[in-house]
Amino acid sequence: MPERLLGLDVGTTATKGLVFDLSGNILASASQPYELLTPQPGWVEQSPDELCKAVAQVIRSVLAQLEPGDHIAAISLSSQGGTTIPVDAEGRPTYNAISWMDQRGTVQAERVRMALGDAYVYTTTGWPLQSALPLQHIAWLRDAMPDHFARSRYFLFVNDFIGHWLTGERCMDPTNAGITQLMNIATGDWDERLLEIAGIQREQLSPIRPCGTVIGKVTTAASAVTGLAQGTLVVNGAHDQYCAAVGAGVMQPGQVLLSCGTAWVLLAVPETIEAGLASGMAVGRHAVEGHWGAIRSLGGVGRSMEWLVDILSDERSPNQERAERLRSLDQAAARATTGADGLFFYPLAGGHAATYGPTRGAFIGLTLKHGRGDLARAVMEGIAFELKWTLEEIHTAGVHVSELKMVGGAAKSVIWPRIVADVTDTIVIVPSSGEAASRGAAILAGTGVGLFPNVFAGFTTLKAHEETLLPEPASVTRYAEVFAVYRRGAHFDSTQPKIGAA
Amino acid sequence: MPERLLGLDVGTTATKGLVFDLSGNILASASQPYELLTPQPGWVEQSPDELCKAVAQVIRSVLAQLEPGDHIAAISLSSQGGTTIPVDAEGRPTYNAISWMDQRGTVQAERVRMALGDAYVYTTTGWPLQSALPLQHIAWLRDAMPDHFARSRYFLFVNDFIGHWLTGERCMDPTNAGITQLMNIATGDWDERLLEIAGIQREQLSPIRPCGTVIGKVTTAASAVTGLAQGTLVVNGAHDQYCAAVGAGVMQPGQVLLSCGTAWVLLAVPETIEAGLASGMAVGRHAVEGHWGAIRSLGGVGRSMEWLVDILSDERSPNQERAERLRSLDQAAARATTGADGLFFYPLAGGHAATYGPTRGAFIGLTLKHGRGDLARAVMEGIAFELKWTLEEIHTAGVHVSELKMVGGAAKSVIWPRIVADVTDTIVIVPSSGEAASRGAAILAGTGVGLFPNVFAGFTTLKAHEETLLPEPASVTRYAEVFAVYRRGAHFDSTQPKIGAA
Repeated sequence: MPERLLGLDVGTTATKGLVFDLSGNILASASQPYELLTPQPGWVEQSPDELCKAVAQVIRSVLAQLEPGDHIAAISLSSQGGTTIPVDAEGRPTYNAISWMDQRGTVQAERVRMALGDAYVYTTTGWPLQSALPLQHIAWLRDAMPDHFARSRYFLFVNDFIGHWLTGERCMDPTNAGITQLMNIATGDWDERLLEIAGIQREQLSPIRPCGTVIGKVTTAASAVTGLAQGTLVVNGAHDQYCAAVGAGVMQPGQVLLSCGTAWVLLAVPETIEAGLASGMAVGRHAVEGHWGAIRSLGGVGRSMEWLVDILSDERSPNQERAERLRSLDQAAARATTGADGLFFYPLAGGHAATYGPTRGAFIGLTLKHGRGDLARAVMEGIAFELKWTLEEIHTAGVHVSELKMVGGAAKSVIWPRIVADVTDTIVIVPSSGEAASRGAAILAGTGVGLFPNVFAGFTTLKAHEETLLPEPASVTRYAEVFAVYRRGAHFDSTQPKIGAA
Repeated sequence: MPERLLGLDVGTTATKGLVFDLSGNILASASQPYELLTPQPGWVEQSPDELCKAVAQVIRSVLAQLEPGDHIAAISLSSQGGTTIPVDAEGRPTYNAISWMDQRGTVQAERVRMALGDAYVYTTTGWPLQSALPLQHIAWLRDAMPDHFARSRYFLFVNDFIGHWLTGERCMDPTNAGITQLMNIATGDWDERLLEIAGIQREQLSPIRPCGTVIGKVTTAASAVTGLAQGTLVVNGAHDQYCAAVGAGVMQPGQVLLSCGTAWVLLAVPETIEAGLASGMAVGRHAVEGHWGAIRSLGGVGRSMEWLVDILSDERSPNQERAERLRSLDQAAARATTGADGLFFYPLAGGHAATYGPTRGAFIGLTLKHGRGDLARAVMEGIAFELKWTLEEIHTAGVHVSELKMVGGAAKSVIWPRIVADVTDTIVIVPSSGEAASRGAAILAGTGVGLFPNVFAGFTTLKAHEETLLPEPASVTRYAEVFAVYRRGAHFDSTQPKIGAA
């Protein structure tokens, strides 16, 4: 019976599912979006029930695409991290899922800051103290919703919530546990002082077990809803950034995952916790045991390209295929020159000093000769400059960067990966399939049931075809000059748009 | 027999002709383009024969549109100034017309500078010493083409060349004579020292007579070619900027003509030569005797809007009607806010420190919320800021500005004249018909044959309907704040695109 692996990616806006054969070919795929609820400004919630429904629908959909003899050997989950789902003793949600983007916990974060200090939280958990992560979600529920808090027997997160829904077992993994800001990164166990300040007992959180270990079997009830065979093995997955790292083969120091969506997110592999913490990145235990990970977001830099595509599209043809428009612009950018003929672009959101919020940017050095392709080229280069700036900071802190594995929308561009390679003077590797997170989950699933001796072997077996771009020396030299100018110019004050020498 | 007036505008790229009745209604119109020849970089020539053919074709075309009884009482010419046409004793061109845009006379200009000094040329002729004007054209021909120079009995310009072609009479007017850099502005006669340095005798130039006086009658030969009745009176016209001033009614100190094409050009009416010269503008004798004019170009600021229209248009629909696209963008700009929501635009060509060449500009303060209308609004405002800056300099020099008569493409915008009024805190008057130069020629024609007692009376009789925009105080205040920021930011160095406080 042909063995198949199901990788689920339970993300922030949708759940995707992919079924792989043991050569890494995708046999089935499905996706189901869901809503983000914003009951108040700054609050972001999701319906746990909708998450389950989407997961069930995606699984049913991919199973329907398989051949009769196909056997799902195991399933594992890539999941959004840091989203809290309080449940009662029977596992029923007592409140909506509170998203990792939810800012309601500012007072609670301040209290943690006063009590423990930023440094304690960062060095203990690896994640800089934030108001949008589970430590604060839980404390907020205790402060603001004491009845709900009292009825909440357990505090689950997307991964163990779905895992429990499928198997009846509660199990965390170290990557998802890290982003809760409740785990001690060094020990890999829940931290008593942080549990105390959150106001919960360690029994209220799921035990933390390694990624890629079996957590249980699909129950009768879950089988009925999803169509998975009862008893199908469910393997402990990982936070989506780490699943993507596994799926793209970012497991060794020097390798960096560059996920290019609306936000651009880096996941590096520091040699030590200390190097990771020195970089200021969000440090965690890697999905591959014995390794570390370090995440840094450039914020929504990708939104500038989306903005450009929109603004350059004729408003009277709004239904024109967006992908087609982007492709046309991408090709025009490829025809433009290195440095976009003297045009500089500063991103409208995100950057090396990124927040997730919007900012003010600029096109500087515009001439009448600049066309659409030059504008797109400048946008790509400006974002690549912000990436270079970020990588330099990381490198200075001691996190080595020798190759970038680039996934996401920008990786599909005919020119952007080349720009990234030449601007950063770093090897860029582009997997032909962008579904790194689901692939990583499938690798963990196969590892968990013994189809692969370890995660790395799983990656080499299941990996997508990769294109490798070596930096071109002439272009590297040119971009180094352009970046020096870019960097000098990047101090922006919208109330005083000084252009020219300082 | 109904009296009609024919105003011809023999411009740089086309000849236009309009026939007016004595209420100022346009009864017929025609246009015929011609080529600019660029035999070498920096050289710009035109075929004198093509000019004549275009004039003949335009006249034939407008005559064909008239009713049988219509009688052309007189004809006059608005013409491009500063374009030299050397001819032999029979009036046949010995060389192509050398355009006012032709830069071949740099060595000759330097010689004049050494011999007489910039100040002599400027204070004597009213025009700053330039290599692209007839003084240098003639000297160049003498230096570089001695045979052609020797065969050139006369040096004509577009106005007297066409006038001679129609009537057999050679006659200059003070506005066209001024831009040759061979006339003494104070006396209104050719200047002996300048004639000497050009290497010609005063007899080789046409006598200078006032605008709006009869210069002759259409000859049998010209009648045969143009269809004009033999004996039709031809009246001395003016340089196109001055004809437009007449057609728009810019004749009194405080009035300023703002011609908004690809280039934006100001024509003010200084109270004295001295005030005009203090402003650094190109000072001349006005087409209305006893008045002065002063011209300053902002260079090709209008090209930025053309660029924006092009770049925002879907490149896959290149044949989409340009005017329609511009109208759509114009309406979007009208919906944008004062100050374009914090977006600043610095023109890609021209400006208060204008040359005719391109430069580098910028959009600064871009956000993800900015749409096409904001971009267009910012472009309009940026150009208006450059205008304000220019007007402040003129005002400081003693040239009073109390109202702007706005003609050309930008005057047709639903919002740009309003922006100009509020940014400059000046009354803006927009004639409903943009053909000010041809209308001015018709006014001079009618004045010359006694249909009007003087030019001003001719204007009040023939003028187009005008819309008057008073500055809106709240918007004036807001724009004053925005301009202060704009002005601080406007020091641009493309090799160092510093953004932010100096």
